Amino acid sequence: MAAVELVQLWRGGLLESSHFGHAVICDGNGIVEAWGDPEAVIFPRSSCKMLQALPLMESGAADAVGLGTEQLALACASHNGGRMHTERVDAWLQGIGCSEADLRCGSHMPRDKAENARLTCSHEGPCQLHNNCSGKHAGFVTLNQRLGGHDEYGEIDHPVQQAIRTAFEEETGETAAGWGIDGCSAPNFACSIGGLARAMARFATRESGTRGEARQRLVEAMMLHPELVAGEGRACTELMRAMRGRVAVKTGAEAVFIAIIPERGLGIALKILDGGTRGSEAAIAAMMLRLGLLQSGDPAAQKFLTGPILNWRGKDTGYLRAPTIAAW
Amino acid sequence: MAAVELVQLWRGGLLESSHFGHAVICDGNGIVEAWGDPEAVIFPRSSCKMLQALPLMESGAADAVGLGTEQLALACASHNGGRMHTERVDAWLQGIGCSEADLRCGSHMPRDKAENARLTCSHEGPCQLHNNCSGKHAGFVTLNQRLGGHDEYGEIDHPVQQAIRTAFEEETGETAAGWGIDGCSAPNFACSIGGLARAMARFATRESGTRGEARQRLVEAMMLHPELVAGEGRACTELMRAMRGRVAVKTGAEAVFIAIIPERGLGIALKILDGGTRGSEAAIAAMMLRLGLLQSGDPAAQKFLTGPILNWRGKDTGYLRAPTIAAW
Repeated sequence: MAAVELVQLWRGGLLESSHFGHAVICDGNGIVEAWGDPEAVIFPRSSCKMLQALPLMESGAADAVGLGTEQLALACASHNGGRMHTERVDAWLQGIGCSEADLRCGSHMPRDKAENARLTCSHEGPCQLHNNCSGKHAGFVTLNQRLGGHDEYGEIDHPVQQAIRTAFEEETGETAAGWGIDGCSAPNFACSIGGLARAMARFATRESGTRGEARQRLVEAMMLHPELVAGEGRACTELMRAMRGRVAVKTGAEAVFIAIIPERGLGIALKILDGGTRGSEAAIAAMMLRLGLLQSGDPAAQKFLTGPILNWRGKDTGYLRAPTIAAW
Repeated sequence: MAAVELVQLWRGGLLESSHFGHAVICDGNGIVEAWGDPEAVIFPRSSCKMLQALPLMESGAADAVGLGTEQLALACASHNGGRMHTERVDAWLQGIGCSEADLRCGSHMPRDKAENARLTCSHEGPCQLHNNCSGKHAGFVTLNQRLGGHDEYGEIDHPVQQAIRTAFEEETGETAAGWGIDGCSAPNFACSIGGLARAMARFATRESGTRGEARQRLVEAMMLHPELVAGEGRACTELMRAMRGRVAVKTGAEAVFIAIIPERGLGIALKILDGGTRGSEAAIAAMMLRLGLLQSGDPAAQKFLTGPILNWRGKDTGYLRAPTIAAW
């Protein structure tokens, strides 16, 4: 099945741009609703960081070094690289006898406005703590201490990545369709969009045992610390705040978004074909409207979907719509 | 006809994202080649600034105040708001007895790195000169002096915009399908993608008379000053530099791109449906490869299309392809 139109941009009464994609809602029994092709293979990118954090939990590594909910949220984060993020990742690494130099994520300028300005104006370069994936990598380093692997924990045949592949395949219920190298140099395994939604439904389902407990603690940590999962102004943070601990949402590069809804046992995964984040943010907001978890008048809904698009002089120039997902 | 796949993003041997769109190549007699639907209605956005500058030339306003090629290039520009841009627009306005306060484009932080850092570190806000459209608006102000209209030159029924509508409809050969408000608050008229390509073919054709001369002077100004049309690192600037004055290219918001090729009498217009600039930049580079105007090994071609996509540690993570337009 082909991708379907999920998000539209209207200007002057005309359709200016369209985002096509695939989206799936699953519960514990399988697909509840789907748009486009549930079998379409995607790279989940950062949307699956909670899957990548399962071995950190299940191995006992997280508890052995006493990771709290803040660290667990950071392990699942694509953060803004603000001081609130970098200082916590730094303290985490120091607490396990490691440092920024042990990370293998590379560095980039942070999105956080204040920290970006501080670096710019002090002519200081960013370090690896600023990388939006530094929390995930701190988790890899922590797991690697437990597993006793060599320092290059990002290599595909490294015990850290092999443990992640196993968890990823078990949770999606699929053999990985392949793998690619992510922006942060870690492997990213491919799966169907339906498989990713199925994995998210598992995260939304209360289950006993090591795996079930690991899932639940990660989701609760995300919902408890929306500001650590992304940062001020970001869709993950603002949508989670708006839904007040009822839902975890997580973005991934190239326009992937997932949602985990424990109170309904539902998991959602969506991918906008063109990789445009505007589309995936609008589509996940539309899903939250559809399920009644977010109201169209909420500031977060307005920002990412329902509000007018204002230009540099504050003039109303157009709007987004997601007619196949929700009306308002 | 539906949009067709123009640009693909590959990672780990799998197709990760796709950009669909419409593209048309015209000569003086009409369509030479088309992808997707030539009748699809689009907003050209900033890709049609040379059309919006025609009344500035034909009215005699440009020559009356002695505008040179730098000002004409700026009138057609979506610039980075660097000092090279803002100082020239400022001098232009002062030269006609006006100032930044006469602009109606609004202000936003410039893309130019040095100027952005200067404003950030001095806690200074941007002014309207920094708006990427300030040159176009300086042209509107100049034309308005000649026409004697009121100060709100951006209103749809203002003589400045009515003159632009007439030129736009004559050049595209179509009645405008509508209009919207652009990011800079000016009206933007809608046309078919084929109509936009037809207009660009006219800009590529030598023709005597006031209109013909106006077209030629604008295109030559763009090709003479690639750095004024956009700025360092931008696709318009780097692609025009790479083609050494043989081709004018211009981007528009929501992933529009045009090309004017005087030596072949060809005009190109393309629109990526999703509005993603990555797609339109790659697609116009592919068009230049197809026509033999750019080589795949050229640094500009590599940057926007043919080169590997490197991550924060310099690792090769994937690549773009445009199989329906060009192979390399």
